[in-house]
Amino acid sequence: MNSELFRFVDLSDAEVDALEARYRPLGSSLRELVDAAIRTTAGDDEVAAAVATIEALTASLRVNQIDGASGVHYNESGRSWTWGNAAIGLRNAVAPPMVVHSAENGDTHAEVHLGAAYEGPPGMVHGGVSALLLDHLMGVTASRMSKVTFTGTLTLRYRNPLPLGRVVLNGRVAGEEGRKVFVTAEIEGDQGVAVEAEGVFIVPIWSE
Amino acid sequence: MNSELFRFVDLSDAEVDALEARYRPLGSSLRELVDAAIRTTAGDDEVAAAVATIEALTASLRVNQIDGASGVHYNESGRSWTWGNAAIGLRNAVAPPMVVHSAENGDTHAEVHLGAAYEGPPGMVHGGVSALLLDHLMGVTASRMSKVTFTGTLTLRYRNPLPLGRVVLNGRVAGEEGRKVFVTAEIEGDQGVAVEAEGVFIVPIWSE
Repeated sequence: MNSELFRFVDLSDAEVDALEARYRPLGSSLRELVDAAIRTTAGDDEVAAAVATIEALTASLRVNQIDGASGVHYNESGRSWTWGNAAIGLRNAVAPPMVVHSAENGDTHAEVHLGAAYEGPPGMVHGGVSALLLDHLMGVTASRMSKVTFTGTLTLRYRNPLPLGRVVLNGRVAGEEGRKVFVTAEIEGDQGVAVEAEGVFIVPIWSE
Repeated sequence: MNSELFRFVDLSDAEVDALEARYRPLGSSLRELVDAAIRTTAGDDEVAAAVATIEALTASLRVNQIDGASGVHYNESGRSWTWGNAAIGLRNAVAPPMVVHSAENGDTHAEVHLGAAYEGPPGMVHGGVSALLLDHLMGVTASRMSKVTFTGTLTLRYRNPLPLGRVVLNGRVAGEEGRKVFVTAEIEGDQGVAVEAEGVFIVPIWSE
């Protein structure tokens, strides 16, 4: 475990659960507000009042805050959490958030609802959002939930448009060679596979 | 112009400016709130009160809202806007938002500040966020601000970590062949080039 990358926190699992229960609704409610801010047709006065409310709320939450970004934490039981992550962070309204499930054989799977905030072409998921989610899921796949890996090369083939709504991702390890882990994955929606991805992930020396 | 993709709106440029001035602060203030929600150490009561405030605000903004996502709009003067876009949408707190500048020779450039909401590895920009921004900038590069293009293939080579903070993207057309436009681009931070990208973008038949 590299101490520059992961911060040890002296909290029991129950205490981590309590923090998660405190902050999860903050992330969820904010995702709804982000969606509403994109779609509202409210007029000048109402929007100005909303901005004032948001600014006051931000100021009150900032009275006590950490320096910099969230990072990755772990406790004595080996539990780790990354609530600020751009793809999976439950406190981060930028993240859908994606939840990656790993099967016993190492294959990974995720189902994500992507609303108005993830739009690229009209009504469609932004191609870069597909890239973000695939990159993350493939990194998890490469790590097999135990070792740290970094993305080396990622190749994405865009096959079909991906309508906003429910999308499904599947990934698997396709091979290993020294410090390299080869992963393939796809993201699909109602119109079939939208993006096929191949990735080479690297196991850094210090993690072995 | 394909009417399924782009919606004509009967607004003058001045009216579009007024709408932009109304909604831009909503997006900006929300980005700050998203950041604060990741970094606050506020306790149970304060967070619960913040959630209640956010939910009430969301409900009030949703009283009048469009169906579905934002889409891309254009008016009679040829101006177009895409305020909900996941990479560049000024009303979308998921988007940093990136502003892409095009030089006379077609090269593109963007400078973006990426804070806590864009984290992947601790203190670093999520590799998938680099992919999102590169994909978008390269699409703009391929389009040369005039034709519509879709991502065909995107290859990303991760060279160095990219610390959170100010990042710079540069892109250019490397060649064209029939309906294909070849684009290269990089994203870099304080530690040099982080990700090199090559993309093949496709000009759909209906846009010619």
